[in-house]
Amino acid sequence: MKIKIAELREIIEKILSSKHYSPNEAAKIAEVLLFAELTGKNTQGILKLSGSEPAQDIEPKYKPKIVRETELSALVDGGGSAGPLPAQIAAEKVIEIAAKKGFAIVGMNNTFSSVGAIGFYARKIAKQNLIGIVAANSPRTILHFGGIDPAYGTNPIAFGFPTQESPIVFDMASSAITWYGLVRAKALGEKLPDNVAVDKDGNITTNPEAAMNGAILPFDRSYKGSGLAMVVELLAGVLPGANYIFDEGDWGTTFIAISPNLLMNTDEFKKRSSDLIKKVKSGRTQPGKQIRIPGYDAEEEMEKLIASGEIEMEEKLLHDLRAKI
Amino acid sequence: MKIKIAELREIIEKILSSKHYSPNEAAKIAEVLLFAELTGKNTQGILKLSGSEPAQDIEPKYKPKIVRETELSALVDGGGSAGPLPAQIAAEKVIEIAAKKGFAIVGMNNTFSSVGAIGFYARKIAKQNLIGIVAANSPRTILHFGGIDPAYGTNPIAFGFPTQESPIVFDMASSAITWYGLVRAKALGEKLPDNVAVDKDGNITTNPEAAMNGAILPFDRSYKGSGLAMVVELLAGVLPGANYIFDEGDWGTTFIAISPNLLMNTDEFKKRSSDLIKKVKSGRTQPGKQIRIPGYDAEEEMEKLIASGEIEMEEKLLHDLRAKI
Repeated sequence: MKIKIAELREIIEKILSSKHYSPNEAAKIAEVLLFAELTGKNTQGILKLSGSEPAQDIEPKYKPKIVRETELSALVDGGGSAGPLPAQIAAEKVIEIAAKKGFAIVGMNNTFSSVGAIGFYARKIAKQNLIGIVAANSPRTILHFGGIDPAYGTNPIAFGFPTQESPIVFDMASSAITWYGLVRAKALGEKLPDNVAVDKDGNITTNPEAAMNGAILPFDRSYKGSGLAMVVELLAGVLPGANYIFDEGDWGTTFIAISPNLLMNTDEFKKRSSDLIKKVKSGRTQPGKQIRIPGYDAEEEMEKLIASGEIEMEEKLLHDLRAKI
Repeated sequence: MKIKIAELREIIEKILSSKHYSPNEAAKIAEVLLFAELTGKNTQGILKLSGSEPAQDIEPKYKPKIVRETELSALVDGGGSAGPLPAQIAAEKVIEIAAKKGFAIVGMNNTFSSVGAIGFYARKIAKQNLIGIVAANSPRTILHFGGIDPAYGTNPIAFGFPTQESPIVFDMASSAITWYGLVRAKALGEKLPDNVAVDKDGNITTNPEAAMNGAILPFDRSYKGSGLAMVVELLAGVLPGANYIFDEGDWGTTFIAISPNLLMNTDEFKKRSSDLIKKVKSGRTQPGKQIRIPGYDAEEEMEKLIASGEIEMEEKLLHDLRAKI
């Protein structure tokens, strides 16, 4: 069924501000979840308000704070808040520094939950005419190629680039299936696709519960995918002082912003990145397929949705959501 | 057959300094090719001295020069030199700036050939206690997911991280097979593996010549691989003012160096990255497999090789090489 986007935002904000978060803080978290809904990344949307650890129930130990700062960097201590709140603060900080200096890196630790769709932050940076790189680690689920035991989190990495129109935002998890994919298959009694996970003895399994006790394969089932997952673990876990190769504890995120102006006039860069899109889109497509530019095409669809004022949601999901107010 | 490493280096340097490059310049290029041989990346080694465009025959228009410089960045004009020469200069520059400022980005354009194994440069940066990111584009061979026509080069990206021992260096191409893989299969009259390339009409082909007129698939055969190839095209082609989505012309490379010290004490970072390796290696392995840490394990093997003083090479390759002096 359809719901007005403004109403959906209001419901999300109300739920988030019902216990531990101020209306301002709730709005910052809601922005991230709503973005996920508006761009079809549903597992990063209002589902974050349900499940075993709903965002609104995460009680911060203290407010997020900046604990280390240099001319080009900052370290954000999340204080145990729901991930998107300190991540919004970190993204604002990385933009603030890079706008002045041309470059910034901001690390974040001391959060114990996901920051949501990391493409949101890469897009936020790119909308300020900066190239954004965002990486996040999480409890271990993916195996290192050749190994059996889980080593890395599903470890997403995102890149954002300004263009003359909407930013290009490329956002990918390092895993062949998301953790939520396992949870969902288990709940529905469904089998997993072939060749996405192993059981605790390292044998390929289509049983979601066996996979939860085993490990997920890297997205390409090769050393390249687990190499990228390792890179994310180093950038997002090791570098900002969060946990790494862990089952429970401190998730880390790192935000990088680079001004194109360090190498060429930013307007020229945007002209060239728009031209790259035009060139790629001018190619022939496979029958029934299209050439999608990540983020860029989703932005156009999101703008249409926002202009329409309404979004389609599952009735049960909406019902459950309203019951939380 | 075996050859003394010192002798191999001398031969490579002699060939490179026979026409257009000074002994100093030849040594810089040789270092990159020899590294590839010593780490088993044979297609990036002495093969660069043969084929349709041997490195020693590339006549520079002028010496590589720095054409733009800020506190945090530099732009290197390669002057049409063989790729590894200006790339060495760019890597030295990125290290010089980042050692002072904690961060640097150096772009490179105006080269018309490969820079060789880009892991070499990421390792060089990491050996100076900096996190290195290096990306290089090249003439288009990979299709954008959903498309038929080639869009991006084989577009490798490399990451280097210092540890308490050797650096971790992760280096990957965005393509399911290298261009050299096609050349080799064609020369030997062999078929390609299934599902690595399409012909000019977009149909999967195992014929190397048909693939050369068609396109190579992204390494994971999905939107993730072509998304990463696009990221490399933006970082390495668009940003430093080189060509992008091109058949012939100006290849680009971008070098980034970040001091861990911007977020934590560098010694602490190295301790943590070494600990990450220990944790990953402590996991169980699949039967007959091992857990290899990219770069890190190769470095140990390279050190053994250097200590032995000799390297095994194909007799025909060595014979052809000696004939070039």
